[in-house]
Amino acid sequence: MELYLVIAIFVGALLAIAFAVIMAKRVLSFDEGTEKMKKISASIRSGANAYLKRQYTIVLIFFAVMFVILGGMAFAGLLTPYVPFAFVTGGFFSGLSGFVGMKIATAANARTANACRTGLNKGLRVAFSAGSVMGFTVVGLGLLDISIWFALLKFVFNLDASGITSAMLTFGMGASSMALFARVGGGIFTKAADVGADLVGKVEAGIPEDDPRNPAVIADNVGDNVGDVAGMGADLYESYVGSVISCAALGVAAFSGNGDMQFKAMAIPMIMAALGILCSIIGTFFVRTGEKTEQKLLLKALSRGTNLAAVLIAVAAFPLIWFILGQEHWTLYWAVLAGLLAGVLIGKSTEYFTSDSYGPTKKLASKSETGSATIIIGGLGLGMLSTAIPIVIVGIAVLTAFFVSGGAASTNLGLYGIALAAVGMLSTLGITLATDAYGPVADNAGGIAEMSGLEPEVRERTDALDSLGNTTAATGKGFAIGSAALTALALIASYIDKIHGMDETVTYESFSVMNPLVLIGLFIGACLPFVFAALTMDAVGRAAQSVVIEVRNQFKKIKGLMEGKADPDYAKCVDMCSRSSLKEMILPTVIAIVVPVIVGLVLGFYGVVGMLAGATASGFLLAIFMSNSGGAWDNAKKYIEAGNHGGKGSEQHKAAVVGDTVGDPFKDTSGPSINILIKLLSMVSIVFAALIFNVHIQW
Amino acid sequence: MELYLVIAIFVGALLAIAFAVIMAKRVLSFDEGTEKMKKISASIRSGANAYLKRQYTIVLIFFAVMFVILGGMAFAGLLTPYVPFAFVTGGFFSGLSGFVGMKIATAANARTANACRTGLNKGLRVAFSAGSVMGFTVVGLGLLDISIWFALLKFVFNLDASGITSAMLTFGMGASSMALFARVGGGIFTKAADVGADLVGKVEAGIPEDDPRNPAVIADNVGDNVGDVAGMGADLYESYVGSVISCAALGVAAFSGNGDMQFKAMAIPMIMAALGILCSIIGTFFVRTGEKTEQKLLLKALSRGTNLAAVLIAVAAFPLIWFILGQEHWTLYWAVLAGLLAGVLIGKSTEYFTSDSYGPTKKLASKSETGSATIIIGGLGLGMLSTAIPIVIVGIAVLTAFFVSGGAASTNLGLYGIALAAVGMLSTLGITLATDAYGPVADNAGGIAEMSGLEPEVRERTDALDSLGNTTAATGKGFAIGSAALTALALIASYIDKIHGMDETVTYESFSVMNPLVLIGLFIGACLPFVFAALTMDAVGRAAQSVVIEVRNQFKKIKGLMEGKADPDYAKCVDMCSRSSLKEMILPTVIAIVVPVIVGLVLGFYGVVGMLAGATASGFLLAIFMSNSGGAWDNAKKYIEAGNHGGKGSEQHKAAVVGDTVGDPFKDTSGPSINILIKLLSMVSIVFAALIFNVHIQW
Repeated sequence: MELYLVIAIFVGALLAIAFAVIMAKRVLSFDEGTEKMKKISASIRSGANAYLKRQYTIVLIFFAVMFVILGGMAFAGLLTPYVPFAFVTGGFFSGLSGFVGMKIATAANARTANACRTGLNKGLRVAFSAGSVMGFTVVGLGLLDISIWFALLKFVFNLDASGITSAMLTFGMGASSMALFARVGGGIFTKAADVGADLVGKVEAGIPEDDPRNPAVIADNVGDNVGDVAGMGADLYESYVGSVISCAALGVAAFSGNGDMQFKAMAIPMIMAALGILCSIIGTFFVRTGEKTEQKLLLKALSRGTNLAAVLIAVAAFPLIWFILGQEHWTLYWAVLAGLLAGVLIGKSTEYFTSDSYGPTKKLASKSETGSATIIIGGLGLGMLSTAIPIVIVGIAVLTAFFVSGGAASTNLGLYGIALAAVGMLSTLGITLATDAYGPVADNAGGIAEMSGLEPEVRERTDALDSLGNTTAATGKGFAIGSAALTALALIASYIDKIHGMDETVTYESFSVMNPLVLIGLFIGACLPFVFAALTMDAVGRAAQSVVIEVRNQFKKIKGLMEGKADPDYAKCVDMCSRSSLKEMILPTVIAIVVPVIVGLVLGFYGVVGMLAGATASGFLLAIFMSNSGGAWDNAKKYIEAGNHGGKGSEQHKAAVVGDTVGDPFKDTSGPSINILIKLLSMVSIVFAALIFNVHIQW
Repeated sequence: MELYLVIAIFVGALLAIAFAVIMAKRVLSFDEGTEKMKKISASIRSGANAYLKRQYTIVLIFFAVMFVILGGMAFAGLLTPYVPFAFVTGGFFSGLSGFVGMKIATAANARTANACRTGLNKGLRVAFSAGSVMGFTVVGLGLLDISIWFALLKFVFNLDASGITSAMLTFGMGASSMALFARVGGGIFTKAADVGADLVGKVEAGIPEDDPRNPAVIADNVGDNVGDVAGMGADLYESYVGSVISCAALGVAAFSGNGDMQFKAMAIPMIMAALGILCSIIGTFFVRTGEKTEQKLLLKALSRGTNLAAVLIAVAAFPLIWFILGQEHWTLYWAVLAGLLAGVLIGKSTEYFTSDSYGPTKKLASKSETGSATIIIGGLGLGMLSTAIPIVIVGIAVLTAFFVSGGAASTNLGLYGIALAAVGMLSTLGITLATDAYGPVADNAGGIAEMSGLEPEVRERTDALDSLGNTTAATGKGFAIGSAALTALALIASYIDKIHGMDETVTYESFSVMNPLVLIGLFIGACLPFVFAALTMDAVGRAAQSVVIEVRNQFKKIKGLMEGKADPDYAKCVDMCSRSSLKEMILPTVIAIVVPVIVGLVLGFYGVVGMLAGATASGFLLAIFMSNSGGAWDNAKKYIEAGNHGGKGSEQHKAAVVGDTVGDPFKDTSGPSINILIKLLSMVSIVFAALIFNVHIQW
């Protein structure tokens, strides 16, 4: 049976990749449109390519250094020899996911704009197909790597279950490190360009958004691709892989002493992922729309696909657990279901707080009447308040998953249940990511339509698609942060298992919050997301300021630019954003890797567990707060632009633009990076566990 | 010996009150100045009186309801019969502290302005004397109530040590509830009036600050008295009393089984408080200045007093512990010292991040060059980043206090050490609060000088005093939040002691962060300060909006107002602020009391401990973040007004005003309320512990 299971997982992975290839061919079969469109798309593509090349070069150095450090530790017997290699491959595939996503997105932008000239449905098809390439590449590559490593470690190196999961967790650390670089770097790039372009273009020079005279306009579009596409691809690759392998690791711990069950428990999340791919592919066939640009109809078109996929996996998970884990453990099915449902509900809550169809954002927009200060206060309050519902949802999901899985009788099984909830939440990532990743493609298409002077109805259609993208992005963020919290909890449990393996007296019960080492760890951990958010926000501010200065300069020095007689130097702005974002992405990532080691050395493993718990709790809150505040400001501005509270150009609109600008780094740089941070902290702790166990201050 | 100790505490309390009376007489001996000044001061006084009267009426209803509930619980045997009475007296004295502070502050404002006509030193003496009345009233009343209850319970009702501390913790809950009402209500009042007055007066009508034509100008000055004075008085009364009684409770737990030592351990924090009063009084005699308005010289004048008091108590604490607790426990002295030092260092860190003499605020001011969005992003980043140093300071203080006090050998002694650190930090509250409370008096004096058209050099002097007040307020906030974190930790320990008393198998070690009930409690607790901050910020926004509308109305309807021929209806604005702030203060306070009970019923005492730990960590972070962001924006604006980056009236200044307005509710409403929240949550949990122990869902 073992071999069959591995083959099934492998087949699932190949299926996803094959589907991604088919979708990619479909995208490429469309026409890119006019010469001008081709030219613009080409500059965006080359800018994104150039940026990623430089980013990967820097990341390569980091990975080389880490490889040497991990190699040294393996040599000293603190790690198994597979660890350094697993680390590197995790990083490689995470980067590859982002790269493929960027490639297809930059190929699809002009094609989407061109398709929108024919009709809305055609436009949606191109953009959604491009999103699908990204979605299925992420899950396909993720599952492929997991299955290859799994097969290698099991059948070639004959490791036991705990040896396998231990190596695979390092694989996750590689993926998370890469993801953090991609998210932070890409996030800084995209927001620096966006803020810079807006501040000088819209506010100072008074030219519209995406106007070709703005020197930062190409950088802005490049930013969408390297931030919202490549960054998100690497990010969700990490989430996906992280949830599967942390669940596998807890499965091994839950059935310790029973090799056969250990194997099955380890395989369950992987097979569920494979099944999820199948369900997602089926779902994609049900995404289509008519020609009306109404948001409700468009949203329905996408929801049909994602909902169907969710229902299918909810049904399929039951026999999976019943037959593989056996009747006595069928209650674990409830854990999967709890996770799936929690993901959907967090998405709904995000939608409620950030969509202008509901009260909160409408009320926020009305605060523009008394100026920018009140809309800022209002948005901050909205974001903070919006943390309450997701906290309760996650709380209920954790309680359910833990206790139905046997928590009262067995903590190990209960924790495995929590990890399974995370896998349940992400099982249909293929399609949810497709609906999420299509947004930036539509956004770029709008930019190209504007710059190449297409008919107004084309821009109307791309705008409709783009607006919808904001809603699906909100839902996607719900899944990302919800699964991050659950996965982080699972990783903390894995960390304790690792310590338990070295000292049997240490158990899950050993980490009382009243132990001052745990407590101080908790305080420090809770502080980390704040510091991290501060650093990334400041980085955006600094980078944006350099863009502002450059754009002002070009407006002044290039004669005939404002009259449309001369071209601005787009490449210089792209280069500027690249350089500053690459410089700024290093410190936050290094902090995420160094702090857990320092905390471990000073406060021991008690301090580390406290730190991880604190970072997970405060990171979850801060990520939701920042994402929702940012989303609400963005949509409040759009709501005003749609003609409410004075409409475009009014004082109210100006106040809302300030809100939106503050929200930019909130929702697209700091907020999403925190998701990765909380998992990376755990993975680093796990990898360095043996070192910390042997060397730390004895209090 | 017992009786002598109690007498010593009692004498300390009377000494403080006597000193406050002397200082009050001194203040009243000064002249109120011209008729106009008297009239303005009288309107401020009557507005503040009217507000507090209404506030106390509402609070009275709350206390009556709670008295009935607690009485019912006492009747059912879930509480001792002293509890309801202790609760009510705690609330009464907390309110009284605020009331006395407000009385003297409103009596001193015109006198300070008038004294400034003679010279700077005379002005400082009046304002500082008024601050001293408040400071010594708070500590005097605090210690008086503690000693009376202590004497009653011990000598009249003959309770044992744990019975005494248990009743006294309820006394703390009463004080905290009152403090939260006062802080939240007063905070909303003062910021609604401030923001409202600024938005219409300064921005729309273009008249200067404190201009008598602005209908909200009296409300603004009333706000300083009911928020920054009465609110702060109730707040610090609660902090002071809370730290002493939680320390006493842990002393009893630390020496359980040894009645004599229990008594001594309980008495130590009270005697230290009494000694602290003596040291503070000595310190006040060293506060005097020359006639130069330089900040450095003025700050030196105040620091001389506070530093001397701190050194004196640091010296005096040693023999106290050595002789009363005995040689074998002298290491507890280090805990006191750690607390004292931590308070000073957190204050320094606050000063570094918020004073325009240092880099962070200067850099923040420079962000005004690219508009309000960048200065907002910058300020948020600054506040978030500024959490790191205080976290490390508190971490080191906790580690030191715990381990030097015997933590490795005895957790009980270690926790007692942490509580002693909090007492050490607050022991010289008499003088630190005096330096803090004098700020709003100087602020009011400036307003009166402006409104009654005094000579420009008078305003210059009051401004110098006011500016200094910002720095001392920052230091004061450091003590308030630092002691809140330590006291909250001590209260969590007391809570566990209480549960331990009902079920011996529950110990400090029982609350592992991997227990899902603890974990979910942690998440919910971490979320509470966010929700609380959101509610209070929104409340300020709503209340300010109503003031804006009223002021606009008066400008329109009252003929000759702008020409100075007619008087505005000041009372209407005061009434408006009163009504909205009183309405808005109820929900946040009720949440703070209801949520711990609900969490207890659903998640049991495991959930409660998790909640308290989570709220303490995230509340500490959020309070520092909000206070420092707000302080930095305020001073960045002042820095620009001093002539940098374009100076007053420039675009940069306008951007900085937006930052300052966002910062107002941050630093004066939400931030300081969170300090109280985290302690109130613990106290409510302790009072309802027996109920929760008997009735909660069994997972």
